[in-house]
Amino acid sequence: MARTTTKDIRNKILDAATRLIGIRGFASTSIQAIADAVGIRKQSLLHHFTSKEKLREAVLDSLLKYFREVVPQALVEATTGEGRFESAINVLFSFFLEDESRAQIVVREVLDQPERMHEGLCTHLKPWFGLITDYIRKGQQEGLIFEDVDPEAYVMQVVILSVCIIVGARVLSAVFPAEEPYEASFKRMIAEVQRSTKAALFTSKYLEKQKARRRE
Amino acid sequence: MARTTTKDIRNKILDAATRLIGIRGFASTSIQAIADAVGIRKQSLLHHFTSKEKLREAVLDSLLKYFREVVPQALVEATTGEGRFESAINVLFSFFLEDESRAQIVVREVLDQPERMHEGLCTHLKPWFGLITDYIRKGQQEGLIFEDVDPEAYVMQVVILSVCIIVGARVLSAVFPAEEPYEASFKRMIAEVQRSTKAALFTSKYLEKQKARRRE
Repeated sequence: MARTTTKDIRNKILDAATRLIGIRGFASTSIQAIADAVGIRKQSLLHHFTSKEKLREAVLDSLLKYFREVVPQALVEATTGEGRFESAINVLFSFFLEDESRAQIVVREVLDQPERMHEGLCTHLKPWFGLITDYIRKGQQEGLIFEDVDPEAYVMQVVILSVCIIVGARVLSAVFPAEEPYEASFKRMIAEVQRSTKAALFTSKYLEKQKARRRE
Repeated sequence: MARTTTKDIRNKILDAATRLIGIRGFASTSIQAIADAVGIRKQSLLHHFTSKEKLREAVLDSLLKYFREVVPQALVEATTGEGRFESAINVLFSFFLEDESRAQIVVREVLDQPERMHEGLCTHLKPWFGLITDYIRKGQQEGLIFEDVDPEAYVMQVVILSVCIIVGARVLSAVFPAEEPYEASFKRMIAEVQRSTKAALFTSKYLEKQKARRRE
């Protein structure tokens, strides 16, 4: 059997904390409940994270780290290759789809610690944010992107949608036909975000260029 | 001086509860804090609402009631007059803009009581939801709305944006230029939602028709 390293345990604690805080909220989640979910004693958990507040910080840091390290790389790849902007949206979605408590915790922290999250975005999001808005402005100059798009506001909207659709999907599936399985409604919501974010961005010149490239 | 009626007090309690639960969350808001905010004794509050859970129900009911009574009327007006679909989006926005804790509480309850909110949407949202999706399908038949729009998923997306932009705006303003006042960034976000939801829906045939009508 493989040896469980300190790093493994830390990651297990972080995963369990993300899931429980995401579902119940920080105020309603105890250190004991997180230790139980990992299958360790409370004292062992406190050896890795000395307080509930420290653990909360570590959970947030691990999420923000993803935005600092993984997203920028995927975005650079997506925006340097032409016509692959859509895949940038998928990068965002797949991170939150992988574990829906990530999206839940982000929304909860926006509600509970707005100043902390504001600061986190300044540090972790702003550096690569300029990459995408530059890409949009370049596209506008070339007539590939509608000239009335507001680059910063547009990107924010895509971020909001990719987080909030995942948080709200189960509740919002209420308005889809009652006989439709939840998974089908959910797929429709994701597909519509992908369609509409594209339709609101690219001109017919872009779409024709893309079609021509596919024919080559 | 006007006499304070029972209904006035009830509404004052509901307003204070919406604000405090919106900011702090249900678990972190005490009956005492709500009574203090209204300026009445805890016992007087409990005379109107016998428990914190009853008060929570009443807060949610008053929000859902708006969706059952006010929104449908505004939507019918907006969708029967041609070219006024944009004003339907404004109906949603203005309700949440008027008091941002309404949007906060909706998002909190989606996180904390998903089953309750699912049920609430089935009862209060579904009846008028069909009005808008019918309007979209009619527009698609007439070539005024893109044929690849998914009506249910599209409307859900507009609902998500109108709630979540208001909840997230302060945090997300972090990625706008540091020297830009918050109010300016916020206006840009709202304007971009209005632009992009329209751009993702209407064909050039619709936009030309609208232009021609303005010239008349």
